[in-house]
Amino acid sequence: MPVNYSTPAADQLFPVAGVRLGVAEAEIRKKNRRDLTLVALDPGCTVAGVFTQNRFCAAPVQLCRNHLAGGEEIRALVINTGIANAGTGEPGRRAAQASCEAVGGLLGIAADQVLPFSTGVILEPLPVERIQAGLPAAGADLKADNWHAAAHAIMTTDTIAKAASRRLTVNGRTVTITGVSKGAGMIKPNMATMLGFLATDAGIAQSLLDSLVKEAADASFNCITVDGDTSTNDSFVMIASGQSGTSFASADDAGWAEVKAAIVAVAVELAQAIVRDGEGATKFITVAVEGGKTVEECRQVGYAIGHSPLVKTAFFASDPNLGRILAAIGYAGIADLDVDGVRVWLDDVLVAEQGGRAAAYREEDGARVMAQAEITVRVNLGRGDAAARVYTCDFSYDYVKINADYRS
Amino acid sequence: MPVNYSTPAADQLFPVAGVRLGVAEAEIRKKNRRDLTLVALDPGCTVAGVFTQNRFCAAPVQLCRNHLAGGEEIRALVINTGIANAGTGEPGRRAAQASCEAVGGLLGIAADQVLPFSTGVILEPLPVERIQAGLPAAGADLKADNWHAAAHAIMTTDTIAKAASRRLTVNGRTVTITGVSKGAGMIKPNMATMLGFLATDAGIAQSLLDSLVKEAADASFNCITVDGDTSTNDSFVMIASGQSGTSFASADDAGWAEVKAAIVAVAVELAQAIVRDGEGATKFITVAVEGGKTVEECRQVGYAIGHSPLVKTAFFASDPNLGRILAAIGYAGIADLDVDGVRVWLDDVLVAEQGGRAAAYREEDGARVMAQAEITVRVNLGRGDAAARVYTCDFSYDYVKINADYRS
Repeated sequence: MPVNYSTPAADQLFPVAGVRLGVAEAEIRKKNRRDLTLVALDPGCTVAGVFTQNRFCAAPVQLCRNHLAGGEEIRALVINTGIANAGTGEPGRRAAQASCEAVGGLLGIAADQVLPFSTGVILEPLPVERIQAGLPAAGADLKADNWHAAAHAIMTTDTIAKAASRRLTVNGRTVTITGVSKGAGMIKPNMATMLGFLATDAGIAQSLLDSLVKEAADASFNCITVDGDTSTNDSFVMIASGQSGTSFASADDAGWAEVKAAIVAVAVELAQAIVRDGEGATKFITVAVEGGKTVEECRQVGYAIGHSPLVKTAFFASDPNLGRILAAIGYAGIADLDVDGVRVWLDDVLVAEQGGRAAAYREEDGARVMAQAEITVRVNLGRGDAAARVYTCDFSYDYVKINADYRS
Repeated sequence: MPVNYSTPAADQLFPVAGVRLGVAEAEIRKKNRRDLTLVALDPGCTVAGVFTQNRFCAAPVQLCRNHLAGGEEIRALVINTGIANAGTGEPGRRAAQASCEAVGGLLGIAADQVLPFSTGVILEPLPVERIQAGLPAAGADLKADNWHAAAHAIMTTDTIAKAASRRLTVNGRTVTITGVSKGAGMIKPNMATMLGFLATDAGIAQSLLDSLVKEAADASFNCITVDGDTSTNDSFVMIASGQSGTSFASADDAGWAEVKAAIVAVAVELAQAIVRDGEGATKFITVAVEGGKTVEECRQVGYAIGHSPLVKTAFFASDPNLGRILAAIGYAGIADLDVDGVRVWLDDVLVAEQGGRAAAYREEDGARVMAQAEITVRVNLGRGDAAARVYTCDFSYDYVKINADYRS
């Protein structure tokens, strides 16, 4: 059960003019499920992406990087679930290339105008012939109001489809932003999450989109963790079709601040949805670290808390075992941290200061906060003005069950 | 159930001349269990220790560092379980100091000749009056053949007491080495484990002992992980009484190599016992990384594999989900790793090479190894001659159960 998240209804996911989506059952790993998604882009879109820093990055990630760097206009995305096409060496690269060629043949575009994405089991060969066989059905299904189906078709161990959408009026025009994401385990994105796709009909110049996708990833997918495992396939791609009639080429352009804020908000919503549906999650936890010397050290502390199996099992048990949080702060790697200057809150309850338990702290106050489904751990490091946030979930029996059973 | 480990019988733990141990029930956190250990050292012992790098290090760790640095001859150790006296600020330091003073009063020595150790729940105040009340009974129990009782008295969530002992003949004399350790969770020592004590009747000069304790920790307690959480109380202390009639002042002394090898072997046995009894452990896993440019990068890869909840749950399930191991290698932080040069074995089975699954690999071979209780994951990074080992265990339902229930 995801924590305070449900998939928006199909009609709450606004179509983005210039972007059409189609899904199909390709039997990539299992029968009777839609596992292949095709996204077709009208001419004139700008596209930018950020990808995993995992050295064992998947074959499709390598092709995405090449195709984006190649400078050809991107006209399509093809996404399969079931098999990650990672740890597959040269045959994997050939399979990803063959997928792009099949999409090119179907849509009458070149293979290097296609971005391929895969998610699922690592180290298994991608059955590219099933993708080839399934593509015509996905092509026949292409339509602008198909985000809901696409959100479902990219799921793996997700228990719920993840999507977000909003509209705003900018410079007298209606701008639409809609996105989908997937992921529930192997989640500690390092540049992006497992898979996230966001499209807008705003027109955004390539250089502006390139910096926006990084900035949005840093505020969203790069702030989440379920289990600390950086995936081989993390990809976050942003598409700007320009069909709303707006156009932004510089950060100083009128209306850009509003568009950017809305895009980042959708990215954060998509990223948080992954944590809310984290494998076995029963709680959604925001770790807000402030008072650091640098953003990086705040992130270190946030991730030390957000990754600690001891902290996460205590959240699962609703046990205000604050010592585990202090221990994680202590080993986060800030060599000159003065622990007497550190303060820690659970929501509004001050629990630790002066290197120990806060004088006014009462166990029942901590227990009250720990019983909630959403909890903010606030840490003030007392040594500067930098801040950062990490979003995580608790660690339950079901995490072990899901990951001991997956594949079988 | 620990993996292939049982506590040696009392008469297999050889007394170390010059070192006497006594235990008592002090009701520090629970009734009816021996939770207080006193170790009395004859004059003439050298003592050295390494301690946690956690910035929230416990009050007793701070006192240990001060007392060892102070240069007074160490004559006693006092160890309590139940309360860690960590995250307790200035009152915690006063409580640790009061424990040392009580021991000093009992044995007629100065407080700064006493090393205090605590283990248990963090952030709770140490009931020092119960230690004071329990010390006379521990003092009355002091005897040389009491290592077995001490191994039990320092346990927390351990399911089994941990001890190791051996004798060797060096330069015509019999040298004895005996040690105990404890720990099962919050185990990713950074200098030493939760608690480890090792004594020998070899005579070892202070400077030689200082370097030995670091070297032995690096080969043992600094190679283990259960959950990646570096404790606030990690302490590993080595005592050399000299009462065997041997004396070593330099690494070149005759017989030193044998004594050192035996001491390191006991330290490794004690450290591995902690992993074998890791919370919820059903398997003992050695991650042997070789072919690295530096020992540090080999350790990084070893810990990335050894910490990954996805890898550890796959071991629990006996599932040769090798992609998770590759993913962990990929995100271990070696920025210029050429994954095509990486080879991975499960025991003797080559599972991955050339960036993907080994051509000859068969799932049933991987499954055969994964079904074992002891497994070696061997990784060759293919870029140098450095090597390192990490010892870890799998991740089971019981880890969550133990850590969700602990404290309650």
